[in-house]
Amino acid sequence: MASVGVAVVGFGTVGTGVVRLLMKDAARIEQAAGCRLALRHVCDADLKRPRSVQAPKDLLTDDLERVLADDQTQIVVETVGGTTVAVDIMKRALAAGKDVVTANKAALAERGAELFEAARRARRSISFEASCAAGIPVIRAIRDGLVANRITALLGILNGTCNYILTEMSATGEGYGRALADAQAKGYAEADPRLDVSGEDARHKLAILAGLAFGAEVRVGDVYVEGIADLDPSDIRYGKQLGYTLKLLAIGRDVDGALSLRVHPTFVPDGSPLATVGGADNAVLVTGHAVGDTFYVGPGAGQMPTASSIVADIVDAALGRARITFEHVALLAGRGRAVPVQPIQDVWTRYYLRFDVVDEPGILASIAGVLGRHKISIASVLQHESASPESVPLVITTHLAREGSVSAALEEIRRLAVVVGRSVRIRMLEGTETPPAGPRRRKAAK
Amino acid sequence: MASVGVAVVGFGTVGTGVVRLLMKDAARIEQAAGCRLALRHVCDADLKRPRSVQAPKDLLTDDLERVLADDQTQIVVETVGGTTVAVDIMKRALAAGKDVVTANKAALAERGAELFEAARRARRSISFEASCAAGIPVIRAIRDGLVANRITALLGILNGTCNYILTEMSATGEGYGRALADAQAKGYAEADPRLDVSGEDARHKLAILAGLAFGAEVRVGDVYVEGIADLDPSDIRYGKQLGYTLKLLAIGRDVDGALSLRVHPTFVPDGSPLATVGGADNAVLVTGHAVGDTFYVGPGAGQMPTASSIVADIVDAALGRARITFEHVALLAGRGRAVPVQPIQDVWTRYYLRFDVVDEPGILASIAGVLGRHKISIASVLQHESASPESVPLVITTHLAREGSVSAALEEIRRLAVVVGRSVRIRMLEGTETPPAGPRRRKAAK
Repeated sequence: MASVGVAVVGFGTVGTGVVRLLMKDAARIEQAAGCRLALRHVCDADLKRPRSVQAPKDLLTDDLERVLADDQTQIVVETVGGTTVAVDIMKRALAAGKDVVTANKAALAERGAELFEAARRARRSISFEASCAAGIPVIRAIRDGLVANRITALLGILNGTCNYILTEMSATGEGYGRALADAQAKGYAEADPRLDVSGEDARHKLAILAGLAFGAEVRVGDVYVEGIADLDPSDIRYGKQLGYTLKLLAIGRDVDGALSLRVHPTFVPDGSPLATVGGADNAVLVTGHAVGDTFYVGPGAGQMPTASSIVADIVDAALGRARITFEHVALLAGRGRAVPVQPIQDVWTRYYLRFDVVDEPGILASIAGVLGRHKISIASVLQHESASPESVPLVITTHLAREGSVSAALEEIRRLAVVVGRSVRIRMLEGTETPPAGPRRRKAAK
Repeated sequence: MASVGVAVVGFGTVGTGVVRLLMKDAARIEQAAGCRLALRHVCDADLKRPRSVQAPKDLLTDDLERVLADDQTQIVVETVGGTTVAVDIMKRALAAGKDVVTANKAALAERGAELFEAARRARRSISFEASCAAGIPVIRAIRDGLVANRITALLGILNGTCNYILTEMSATGEGYGRALADAQAKGYAEADPRLDVSGEDARHKLAILAGLAFGAEVRVGDVYVEGIADLDPSDIRYGKQLGYTLKLLAIGRDVDGALSLRVHPTFVPDGSPLATVGGADNAVLVTGHAVGDTFYVGPGAGQMPTASSIVADIVDAALGRARITFEHVALLAGRGRAVPVQPIQDVWTRYYLRFDVVDEPGILASIAGVLGRHKISIASVLQHESASPESVPLVITTHLAREGSVSAALEEIRRLAVVVGRSVRIRMLEGTETPPAGPRRRKAAK
């Protein structure tokens, strides 16, 4: 059995996990996969930091040139992260004739086209299963397992930090700040959580997955994003009473040939499998025209789940399957379609709206009047008694409505003298189906 | 782009689905996957039956020889089913130099080793994603996506008919007979449902999945099986009160190097993702030492979900990935491990027991006494008032206990004069973890 040489560049948390698997599980992987993976280099600028795994001294190097010059190294694993040095390392590895494996979602989402182009020029491959939903082999599922399908929708819980925080807020009723602090204490959130809680990390992952699912060139800027930092626990509570669970949902839909791409807090019906995904788990629900709904759940972060997917990609590259895949799959081979992106104002979805209003007669009528004038139809109304004497919360859910109309209506409602404090808009997921064609058709016919 | 010729042998429900995708979605699949699939033959003994898809007349044939002699046909899809003619067709196709794609779980489970050997001799491949859990690409996930993992457990809801029946019984409280009739009326169960409700179909699928997950030669006879036809709705009701949902669960576990392989009705804790899988869906929960738990859900049967996976396999074969996979994955390449199978009597699990007892004092004490003498520890007791004056149902759940001890205890309890009617034993799933090592260690130390 031929041996395939592997270099791990970036000896941080994830790199250490990969080294651990390659060192401790080599014999079992060789038996299972029929290929011998030889760890030849572990490359990092800082070799002094303590790690949980001891790599043999002669494998350690801070000299990338030495790694790239080694003819016996066929595969380079990039676990440096970020969109600058890491991209440079990957491009140089490709140019040196290595296949690349990476978990770097930021680099792929922001500079994917450039990286794929570099791989094609070098006739090598880039594999990135670990970049989205870490341990769940969802890229293989979408790219290969569902290839016969026209994908109509992809719904994902793609950020474990946000899912943990929202699960905590929902379970305990506590506010965002406390739930974040709890997540940080437990290691589910970084000291600087901005990349996660802003939705930016999920946005990167959606850009990658949607590109594969829809065979389309997707740029990060195509994905509308709202994070979770402004959420109020009262809305989670009211949503629960209405039968909904709040998730930071990444949504990709094919809407009459345009792509709706967005990441925002979303009320998911409690009957949806997405509502059951708690804690730091990730999940992806993919709808195909032949298969229907398929659903994937698992750890979306962490050292060993990420390393699990990286080693799977190493095997794919070692066996030569990665290169075949790279040469043929539309997006990777440079045949990604240019698909129009639906502006957020044109999205049709259901809405949860909350207004804090003065407690006096006729208010519901005036708010309903504004909504009606904007052709927004009310599905339910929830008015609770308030702890505050100045205002009461008025919760309204709508039937399918156009985002632009809702924005215009909200602006008008905010100007009403009876509305105090901020008003809240949270989008709702209506089942796993695309919205009925009715309203969109009517719009297209205008 | 080179064109790859495909023949579909067996123009029944699934074959028709494959023909439909190859005819109607050819251009999109070519764009997405980078390979042109040319349908060259549709072969069936009966060409007169009406089908929902019209295949061009010149593609229809009842002459398998003509198909096998065609040099332009590289891939043969077998959708005949069964373990005799179908196996013969696959072997002849392989011998004629074709790669084979099949959904035939019975043939793979009962004659897989023989088929794989034939493929190796011919230096061709057999792909069978559609054989287990139809549309869910779970074979790819286990075989490729989780290859870095030592799989410790595989838990599956692998028969949509049984899951539909149990979901109905649970929702309506009706008996097995009515739920089966309902499933038949809705097309979720065959007129002759024996293969499904006996657990035999799930047993086939578990044999296939466990072989891949554990890299082991698994024979159908290695899998212990109990079906659902004897289940009483009262047990589903009592289980629900205790926080459990009843599923026909296929279980594969690595227990200290031996495989526990079994298909039987199982109470799943309501907190488990498996409990949320209703209707005719299938689901597989795979636990790996690196990744942890990953969970896959989707349609487990049906024309188009099955065709979706078959066409994915056709693409894999057309691109040459299937052959690489077949040459390297342990079980397919003939390097499957011979792993001992744990006898059912040695299984440690939790038990739900129900006895119909005469309503008089001291009965719980005598039953508890028997359990205690067999070292079976009681976790909970539920005694309900009874509609019948002759007996009351007494429900006992146990902590982890050895199956052999429970069998011996049950035999003793059945001989007690106070126990009337049949007694019921249903195994319980304790979370998704393997049972704590304690009791098994103690046993091994004896």
